[in-house]
Amino acid sequence: MTLLLTNIGELVTQDDAVGIIHDAAVVLDGERIAWVGPAAAAPAADERIDAAGRAVIPGFVDSHAHLVFAGDRAAEFAARMAGESYTGGGIRTTVAATRSAGDDVLHAGADRLVREMRRQGTTTIEIKSGYGLSVDEEARSLRIARRLTTETTFLGAHVVPVEYQDRPDDYVALVAGPMLEAAAPHARWIDVFCERGAFDGDQAREILQAGARAGLGLRIHANQLSAGPGVRIAVELGAASADHCTHLSDADVDALAGSDTVATLLPGAEFSTRSPYPDARRLLDAGVVVALATDCNPGSSFTSSMPFCLALGVREMGLSPAEALWAATAGGARALRRDDLGVIRPGARADLVLLNAPSYLHLAYRPGVPLISTVLHDGVPL
Amino acid sequence: MTLLLTNIGELVTQDDAVGIIHDAAVVLDGERIAWVGPAAAAPAADERIDAAGRAVIPGFVDSHAHLVFAGDRAAEFAARMAGESYTGGGIRTTVAATRSAGDDVLHAGADRLVREMRRQGTTTIEIKSGYGLSVDEEARSLRIARRLTTETTFLGAHVVPVEYQDRPDDYVALVAGPMLEAAAPHARWIDVFCERGAFDGDQAREILQAGARAGLGLRIHANQLSAGPGVRIAVELGAASADHCTHLSDADVDALAGSDTVATLLPGAEFSTRSPYPDARRLLDAGVVVALATDCNPGSSFTSSMPFCLALGVREMGLSPAEALWAATAGGARALRRDDLGVIRPGARADLVLLNAPSYLHLAYRPGVPLISTVLHDGVPL
Ligand SMILES: [Zn+2]
Ligand SMILES: [Zn+2]
Repeated sequence: MTLLLTNIGELVTQDDAVGIIHDAAVVLDGERIAWVGPAAAAPAADERIDAAGRAVIPGFVDSHAHLVFAGDRAAEFAARMAGESYTGGGIRTTVAATRSAGDDVLHAGADRLVREMRRQGTTTIEIKSGYGLSVDEEARSLRIARRLTTETTFLGAHVVPVEYQDRPDDYVALVAGPMLEAAAPHARWIDVFCERGAFDGDQAREILQAGARAGLGLRIHANQLSAGPGVRIAVELGAASADHCTHLSDADVDALAGSDTVATLLPGAEFSTRSPYPDARRLLDAGVVVALATDCNPGSSFTSSMPFCLALGVREMGLSPAEALWAATAGGARALRRDDLGVIRPGARADLVLLNAPSYLHLAYRPGVPLISTVLHDGVPL
Repeated sequence: MTLLLTNIGELVTQDDAVGIIHDAAVVLDGERIAWVGPAAAAPAADERIDAAGRAVIPGFVDSHAHLVFAGDRAAEFAARMAGESYTGGGIRTTVAATRSAGDDVLHAGADRLVREMRRQGTTTIEIKSGYGLSVDEEARSLRIARRLTTETTFLGAHVVPVEYQDRPDDYVALVAGPMLEAAAPHARWIDVFCERGAFDGDQAREILQAGARAGLGLRIHANQLSAGPGVRIAVELGAASADHCTHLSDADVDALAGSDTVATLLPGAEFSTRSPYPDARRLLDAGVVVALATDCNPGSSFTSSMPFCLALGVREMGLSPAEALWAATAGGARALRRDDLGVIRPGARADLVLLNAPSYLHLAYRPGVPLISTVLHDGVPL
């Protein structure tokens, strides 16, 4: 089945930087894009959608999300915003709730968030484990994630669970051994939270190297709260992405610039923890590839909105609207080492978003406004 | 016709501060609220909506919006975000486009924004003129606004138009004389942009006093870009609201605290112009009544989203989630001197919002996410 999307006022292809075509059309053939060009030259197709002069962009690629969990941490958020200390236990609160939830509850929660993301224009979603933290629980979280996306990430090294708090090295051995073995069949990626209070550089390296031997691609939560070794390890090991990158030395920036590692920035986390934002401008000016993602999770960033993160990228991180859109689409695809996403060109996945706006600029110009009209995912309108 | 909204997990009445009732119900009788209480004690009604445990809040009251205009300023926004100087002409660009647009275009544009706001939970909208700036054009803008809301505001004193730039006092006389006369039948309020480059304190006072004599209530764009006399004039003249309040002296704060003038904060403008935010905490701590509104306009704040402004109030301005919700509902009602809005109690307008969330906390906890489920306006579901 072919589908013609025509009368597009502004088509953002991302094929060549921003790559704008006015009065454009796109033909989809099943799950792939078949043709892109001026509306007047478009070939015939089985079905037709009239964009009525509105803008069309690639679907958002959210390359960093934690969606398999149970429990609610709204009260913790409210206490943090009021400047109150809160003894809720952070990630461990969610671990306890997740472990005691049935598969159906975990799946329903993740599925609800995936559907919420799709309605906001996100057509590719990476989903991490990391609230199970035992061999069986991490494998269970990944099986649930795999039902919802191909981009699944094993994050057994999210935090040391309570039962291992006095022997963290035993936990690292568990993660790099039996837990990885149970997780690997359900995961494409492995990730480590490399931070004071979580996993140090040596622990992160050991876990990631084990993941690489098991055939997984590498990602790191790096340099979020302090200037640790995460980014340098990401580059050293050839990770696809170093995520957060809030506290970077000049050496970190240089290392990223000379590498194939994407800097994935997660401004929802800084928004919801009232922390300083990463400097996207510094990274772009140094030649680093930058992606934007939501970090959707119940503790530090419970937004699921890529348009919101894009608007923060422009307001707070020095991105132009065009750079922010690229980072939220093609940049996310690069962070997942996918060349068939985040662009509108023949052969790419048929993932497109029709905006209730004449230009992609409105995503930053009209913050908070739901501007997503029709979402086409795998060629099918939502 | 009576309507029972029941099985409300969390009802935020605002009747007594936050005023939360769990497992609640509300009965609407036509355009008014008839009954509020525990679901188990709810009386029978003709129709029934099951909230399925979700949260219900009063409809948002957006007490500051500029919706009657033509033209697009997305390129100006993008240039500003890129740090480029832009010689577009600001408000005057919109004035030129508005004057040359037909009534149907102006009405369609404003109506589209009103519908967009309603879908985001806003049930009361103040709409200003201010892009006509001639006797006929201001009256025309207000006639169009009046078709969409009862809360219309004459803002002939938005900026001195190009044709009066060498004789601003003649323009002030026009606004306070023939323009006011033509506008007053269509307006409830009069407003002045009191700022360097717009209207000084004496001009603002003259225009507002003329408006008061014509029977209009008073509002002022005050202390947005600098610490001018706007707030003091607002208090002196008994204005319902001083809007922006970004640059305040201690004397300004004291004056507001001892008055019936609400401080209406518009963080969308600071977001979209990358400016420092007003300090809501300082105002609340001093005893000032604070409202939140969008300032929706094509130049400095093209958001129409009250949830977005609420989230900014929490992140950037020191409000708790409860204080921000109050400011966006009951606070807006106070800024419009309405006691039948922004609260859920018998006798109030039947304007309620059902959230896709278990608690109002999620409005700040989940920034950017469209959480508005059903909107009841004048007792009718959208
Ligand atoms: Zn994360
Ligand atoms: Zn305004």
